[in-house]
Amino acid sequence: MPHVDLPDLPGIVGLLVRYPRTAGSLNGLADALLRGPSPLTPGERETIAAYVSSRNECGFCAETHGAVARHLLHQEGQTETQARADPKMRALLAIAEKVRVDGRSVSTDDIGLAREHGADDKAIHDTVLIAAAFCMFNRYVDGLATLAPEHPEVYARHAKNLAEGGYLTIPER
Amino acid sequence: MPHVDLPDLPGIVGLLVRYPRTAGSLNGLADALLRGPSPLTPGERETIAAYVSSRNECGFCAETHGAVARHLLHQEGQTETQARADPKMRALLAIAEKVRVDGRSVSTDDIGLAREHGADDKAIHDTVLIAAAFCMFNRYVDGLATLAPEHPEVYARHAKNLAEGGYLTIPER
Repeated sequence: MPHVDLPDLPGIVGLLVRYPRTAGSLNGLADALLRGPSPLTPGERETIAAYVSSRNECGFCAETHGAVARHLLHQEGQTETQARADPKMRALLAIAEKVRVDGRSVSTDDIGLAREHGADDKAIHDTVLIAAAFCMFNRYVDGLATLAPEHPEVYARHAKNLAEGGYLTIPER
Repeated sequence: MPHVDLPDLPGIVGLLVRYPRTAGSLNGLADALLRGPSPLTPGERETIAAYVSSRNECGFCAETHGAVARHLLHQEGQTETQARADPKMRALLAIAEKVRVDGRSVSTDDIGLAREHGADDKAIHDTVLIAAAFCMFNRYVDGLATLAPEHPEVYARHAKNLAEGGYLTIPER
C-alpha cells in the first residue's frame, strides 16, 4: 500500500495525477531529456534510463523504460542487445553506473573513453543528467511505496503511449 | 576541471546557463518543491535539501542550501539547531535519509512516526521528493565535476539571492 493516499494508478502515474504542481516540471524534465534534441537517439536515452532503474532495482521504472527503449530502438533499426554492445553506449552506460552510485566517482578516464568512441559534450551531459534524474524518479516511486503492476501488458501499454506520445501529456485517470 | 565545457560559474549555475533546455524544468521543480504551497516552511524544506546534500557529500549543494536554510529559518524565527531538533522534522529527516540510501527502505513505521508528530500526506510527499530531487541535483553537479568555490562569501551571496528570489530567475552570467 502506498505511504500516502493516491489514485489507483501504477508507479509514478498516481503521483503525477495527485501532485500536479511538481508533475509539470517532472514531465518537462523527462521530455527534454529523453525526447529533446540530443546526439543520442531517444532509444539510446531510454536504454540509459532503463539501465539505471534496473540497477536501482526500481521495478516499475525498469519495466516501463525497458519497454519504451525496445519500442524506440526497434523503430531506429536496432535491438536492445545491439544498442548495449555499441562501444559508445558501453562507455556511456559505465558513466551512468558511476553517477548512480556516486557522482564524484566519474573519472577523466571514463569521460575520455566515451569521447574516443564519439561521445561529445552534449552526449556526456545528457548521460549524466539522465542517470541523475532516474536516481530521483526511482526514489520518488519507491520512497512512497507506489503500486507496481505485475502484468507485463500494463507496462507494454504504458510504454507504447510514452514511446509514441512523449512525457508531456497528462496521464489519464 | 569540469568534464564538459562550461562558463566559469560555480556548481549547478554553469550547467543551467550552458544547458537551458533542461534548466527550465530543473528550476521549476526546485521552486515548486522548495517555495510552492506546503505544510512545511521554506526554511524546513531547505533544511531537508541541505541535509541530503551534506549526507551525499556534495559540497556546493550542501553549502548553498545550508546557507539558504539558515537565512529563511532566521526569518521564520528559529535557528537551524531548533529546526533539526523539532520532533516532526527529526522524523522527516530520518525518512529523507532512507530515501537517499534506497527508496525501498522507507517503512510504515517511519511514516507512522512522522504522522504522530503532525506530518500529513503533503509533508511526507514533499520530504520524499525533496530527498529524491537532491539525489539528482547532487549527482548532476558532481558527476560533471563542476567547480565548487571555497570562499564562504560566494555561497552567502548566492544563498541570499535564492532565499529572496527563489529558483525561477535565470542566473546571471
